[in-house]
Parts: sequence; C-alpha cells; structure tokens
Amino acid sequence: MKDLKPLKTLISFNDAMKILLSHAKNVQDVELVSIEEANGRVLSEEVMAPIDVPHFDRSAMDGYAVKAEDTFGASLHNPVTLELSGSVFPGEIPDAIVEKGKCFKVSTGAMIPEGADSVVILEETETVEKKVFVYKPVFPGANITKKGADIKKGTKIISKGCYLTPSKIGAIASLGLKKIKVFRKPKIALIPTGNEIILPGENLQMGKVYNINTFALSALIKENGCIPIVFPLCPDENNELRKRLKEALNYDLIVIIGGSSVGERDIVMDVLMEIGEILFHGIAVKPGKPTLGAVVEEKLVIGMPGHPTSCLSNGYMILLPILRKIANLPPKNFQIVKGKLSKRISVTLGRMQFLSVKLNGEEVIPVFKESGTITSMAEADGYIEIPGNKELIERGEEVEVKIF
Amino acid sequence: MKDLKPLKTLISFNDAMKILLSHAKNVQDVELVSIEEANGRVLSEEVMAPIDVPHFDRSAMDGYAVKAEDTFGASLHNPVTLELSGSVFPGEIPDAIVEKGKCFKVSTGAMIPEGADSVVILEETETVEKKVFVYKPVFPGANITKKGADIKKGTKIISKGCYLTPSKIGAIASLGLKKIKVFRKPKIALIPTGNEIILPGENLQMGKVYNINTFALSALIKENGCIPIVFPLCPDENNELRKRLKEALNYDLIVIIGGSSVGERDIVMDVLMEIGEILFHGIAVKPGKPTLGAVVEEKLVIGMPGHPTSCLSNGYMILLPILRKIANLPPKNFQIVKGKLSKRISVTLGRMQFLSVKLNGEEVIPVFKESGTITSMAEADGYIEIPGNKELIERGEEVEVKIF
Repeated sequence: MKDLKPLKTLISFNDAMKILLSHAKNVQDVELVSIEEANGRVLSEEVMAPIDVPHFDRSAMDGYAVKAEDTFGASLHNPVTLELSGSVFPGEIPDAIVEKGKCFKVSTGAMIPEGADSVVILEETETVEKKVFVYKPVFPGANITKKGADIKKGTKIISKGCYLTPSKIGAIASLGLKKIKVFRKPKIALIPTGNEIILPGENLQMGKVYNINTFALSALIKENGCIPIVFPLCPDENNELRKRLKEALNYDLIVIIGGSSVGERDIVMDVLMEIGEILFHGIAVKPGKPTLGAVVEEKLVIGMPGHPTSCLSNGYMILLPILRKIANLPPKNFQIVKGKLSKRISVTLGRMQFLSVKLNGEEVIPVFKESGTITSMAEADGYIEIPGNKELIERGEEVEVKIF
Repeated sequence: MKDLKPLKTLISFNDAMKILLSHAKNVQDVELVSIEEANGRVLSEEVMAPIDVPHFDRSAMDGYAVKAEDTFGASLHNPVTLELSGSVFPGEIPDAIVEKGKCFKVSTGAMIPEGADSVVILEETETVEKKVFVYKPVFPGANITKKGADIKKGTKIISKGCYLTPSKIGAIASLGLKKIKVFRKPKIALIPTGNEIILPGENLQMGKVYNINTFALSALIKENGCIPIVFPLCPDENNELRKRLKEALNYDLIVIIGGSSVGERDIVMDVLMEIGEILFHGIAVKPGKPTLGAVVEEKLVIGMPGHPTSCLSNGYMILLPILRKIANLPPKNFQIVKGKLSKRISVTLGRMQFLSVKLNGEEVIPVFKESGTITSMAEADGYIEIPGNKELIERGEEVEVKIF
C-alpha cells in the first residue's frame, strides 16, 4: 500500500499554459460541409469566386433605365420626357434595347437593357401612361451595379482560417457554392475516474455521488467547437485507466477527471508516469491546484481535479484555450461586466484565483464556498480572476466579471 | 399593371421595435431534454433538490478523520500520536467507528466514519506504520462537508427562466436528474421570394442570382436559440405567397424575404393587407428601409428587404431581439471593441445607420458599399450603429464595434 503523497512544487498558471499550449496540436484534417452547417466552423481553404457578382449589369434601385445624356438638364420645373418602351423585372432578360429618348422600367436587381447606362430612381420621376417625366439628371453609371463590381471572378473572397459567421455564410452562398471545406472538429476524450461516482438515474447509495464533471465539461467542450467523447466511468485501478487511455489515444486531446491529486487511489500520476511523460503536476491556481499535464505517444493529456468547482474552473481557465487552439478557433471573447465587490475577500497569496460570482445589478457577489460545493456553480453568472500577488480585495473595489 | 409606389412615411427604429416586440409572443410550450442536450436552453421550471448534497458527511480533503479534541495541543514540536485503525476511500462505507485516540485514513470525497468529527489534512501529519503524528490541532467540523451543507433536500437550486450554462448543467447533474424541462425552441418560417433567385448548385442563367438570405438568416436564427424552417423559393405571385403564408402560420414567427419594397412585383404588402393587418411599412434605418411589420391571425410577420446586406443588418438589428424574446432568451450581449474610424463617413440624416466594418488593430474600416453588395458582408467583422441625428463621423473618431 503506497503512501499519500503531497504535491511538492507548484508551477505558475502562465507557465502551465505555455507548456500545455506548446503540446496542443491544432487539427489539420479537413471535411466538406454544406453551407447550412458551416456557421461557427473554421474555413480550411481560401474561398475564391468562381463567378462575377453580379454576373450582369444590374439595377441597384427601382426606377427607369435611361441613357444618362438624355436626362442632362432635367429639373423639377423642366422635366425631361422619355418614352416608356418596356420593362424588366429581376430574373428576366430584357427583350429590347433602350434607344435615345426612351427608357425601360426596371426594378431593383433587374438586368439593365443594352443601350441604357444609368437608372433614374422612381422617386425622381412621374409616369403618365407611356410618358415618363424625369425631374433630375443622372450621371452615366448611376444606380447600376456593373458586372463583377462587387466580386471579380477568380478573386479571393474569404481567407483560410476564417471563423464563419452569418455574414461570411451569406457571402459564400452568393457564389453558388453548396459545400465548403472546414477543419474537422476535434474530439476530446473525457475519462471520468472514481469508485464513488454513479450515473444520473442510478440509485444513490451511501458514500456515492452523481457524476457531474463530464456533463459540465461536455457542455463547455461543445460550446468551444469540439466534440466530447465521454468514456465509461473508470474505477480507481491502474489497469482500467491504462486500458481507457489506450483507446483515448485515438482522439485529439485526453482529459482525465479525478484521481489527479495525491490520495493513495489517485492513480493518474502512476499510470501516466508509466506510459508517458509528466509535464507538470500542480498549478498555483485556486481552485484547481491538483492539475497535471502529460504527454502519451505525443498526445496531450490533462488530469483535472474531480471536485466539481475545481474541475469547471479548470475547464474555463485551462481547458478552454487549449480546445480553441486545437479547433483552430480564435481566442474566446468573454463578455466582461464591471461591478463592485459585495464583500471583502481574502486570497491565497501565490495562487491565481478563479472566483465564481453572481451579479445583482452593479454588485458582484462571490458565490464560491469550497471546491467541492455545487451551489458555487449553480448560482454563478461568471467569474473574476485574481492574480497571485493579491492578498485581499476590499468590499466595493471594482472588479471585472467574465460572464460564462 | 399596378404602378410603382414609393414608401411615404418612415417609422423610427425604436418605434418599430416597440411595435414588433409587443406582437412577438414568447414560447410557453415545454419539452423534456436530457442534461447532455440542455446547454444553451432556457429552463421552464424551477429545479428543486430531490436529495441532500452531499447526502452523507464527507471529507473535503485527503487526510485523517479524527476526534478534534484528540488533536488539541498538537504542535510541530509536540505532535499528538493517534493509532491508525482503518481507511475509507470515496464510494466506500466505513467498516468501523473512530474511537478516542484513533483515526481513519480518508481521502477527499470519502464518507466520514462515525465517531470522527473532523479531518486533519495530510500535509499536517506524518505516518509511521500504524502511528499517525498530528502536528496541528483541528476544530470540530474542520475539513468536513456535512450532509446537506451544500444543498438541502427540497430547496430551489435553479430558477425558472434560467439560461443554462455548463455550471448550471453541472449543478443539475449533481442532483442525479437525467432530464429537465426547457422551453421549446421557436420555429421561424423563412419565406424567400423573387423570380430571380436560384439555389446553390443550379446553373447561373443571365439575370438570375443565387439565394443568399435564407442561408445567412438561418445561421443567425440558429445562433439565437431558434429553428429556421426554410420554405421553397416563392415566385412573385400573390397566390403563391398566400399559399406559403397559410402554411407558415403553423410556426412561431414568419419572415418574408424580398418583395417588401415598392416595385410592381413587391407583392408582400398586397397579400398582407388582404389577409392580415399592416403594422408599419418602412423604417428609418440604413440599410434596411423597406421593412414591414404585419400580423396575420395573431402571428407576427416581418417583411425584410431582399438586398443581402440590408437583409442581414435587419437580421441583427430587428430580427435578433425578436428571436430572443420569443425563445425566452436574455438579450444578446455582443462583444464590443472600441477603435478609431479609418475614414470620414457621411450619414443619411434621419435614418439610423448600421455600418458594417472590419477591424485592423485599432483601426475600424467601413466595408459597407451599397445594400446589394456581398463584399460588404464578406469582409465585415462587425458593425457600428450610428444614430439618426448624425450627419458625419470624422476620421479618427472613436466608435464602438459590435462583433458579429
């Protein structure tokens, strides 16, 4: 029977992140997705325009297609009179050309008939039967979008690595593309450990607790462009963990939950030392200290504490930036709310603190109790980060809350 | 053949929103979802705790369960010596009680044996065979989480209407709940109109353009907790639109794209006047002026311009708040970035402007060209809102960009 073994040296949060990020490889594999499914994905190739947009000279307004020179000199008191010789609606091909002294009715998006070089907008005309009175002159080119004026065939429209939003999806759709290439979503192996853990719906026996962490982390993983692969509960036995780790090597990142502390049954260190290389064990953060980084067959493994609050704060502070790097996503921009702390809090000097808080108007109320509590999570709207060199934050001091 | 009919009076953006929001009914229907699927949903009932959490007295640390009074007087130079009489790991039930002068090894999360009232943490002990040296006294209750201390059976854990995030999901999982009740996602009928529109992958004939708007708006709709129901392309014929509208009444909101302007084939007004009530036609925004609000059989209908940039800016400014209200979601918190305008822009006085921009470091570069252009969308990182009483924004002036 081995002894309990305290964590001896802690690595700083920044050093831990540098090490973890240097071993986190962003996914290079590509998949083809329909543009309906492409929002929030990351483009893995440049999008080049296969066509001119528009691919014909197009009216930008409802009005009349004219020869601009026919309108020169027109004014409110001396309108120019043109003869209406036809009309074009969007989607149609004009059936004649516009001759001198004549005009075509066009609506927005319609193809400009040959012979016309500009459009007089509806509001600057009046029409009586076949006569169109034009009250204002137009320049050649007025209210016409020329073929290719928006997008020239063969030019780059969107760069590789672009995070796709509704506006980019719209731009891609304008080119008639049905599918585009994006980076595959990384798959994150989640291995929950602990003899005490049971699944929701199971009968709650003495000494047991419901699984929390894979649910909270899976939600976080999905929010950050990755796919959680939740492994069956792993009992605290080296053989079982070894077996699961072997299978987990098929995925892009491995997260082991629980068993990373220093208890006798904290098997994670032992197994990882045996089959891989430990990068560090113990980070100077609170909560979340007993966190470890390791590499097994070039795959990054993160061991996270099983305490739900520690696990989730680790999820936001440590796992999230790694997920986004692997998924080729830009850094997450948390919504930041400024407020005043509702009570004085003392901080463990030397450990960066992740303090969960709720908001009540301007007031920022700490809800963190201890690493093991659920209410710290249930009530939290977000968190504040407190650097390791602070000992105290006074009541009323301004703090920045990152909203979950 | 009817005449072209200019928009006569414009309603202000704020008035338009008040009217639309007053007719937008938030969904009341409820559905049961598994906690794996609940992230980002809105809780439709209170979550009450069916159990105490923890449901037994639990060790909060790795260490030794003791009678606190046995440790009184312990110090680094005069440790108290206790006899190790057993151990408990998480998930186990202790097989004996802790007697005076004795202790039990416990690890974090383990059940506290009867007889013990506190835990001495590992770091403040040393163990030689069956002897445990305790170097620091503990108070009764130290390092123990009492049964129900975190959550008391029968208390409310999360309120109705709560937006579910990973931390709330974790809290719900801790109660052993597999499924919870959330509001149904609203279904948004999207009816694209226009004879000129073709689908991606189709052969691009003269005068035709690819469908853009349903793709961009669907992405926006999904991002905001709703389900887009995209209707087949509607030709510019009153009968066809009437048929589609009838079917669309089965959904929670109806959005008609295109045909809301004043061209002869802008059929939307005609049909809506015939079968429903027009709330307004024309909003003082740029782009996006030819927007209409209507009610058909108590269902809100929004007619949006077909110009892709107008349609998408309408999507963000007008549609998004309505989607979120219907979906019971809190207002969207856009990420805001401050920067300096790269060039002077003049603004249409009297119309609130939605100007799409890209960011280059501190520089905010307008990319809006005209309502019909795609590049305005392809290059945009976000937008700035310019109130209707501004005529000019100078180069270098500070502006706030809402990131898409």
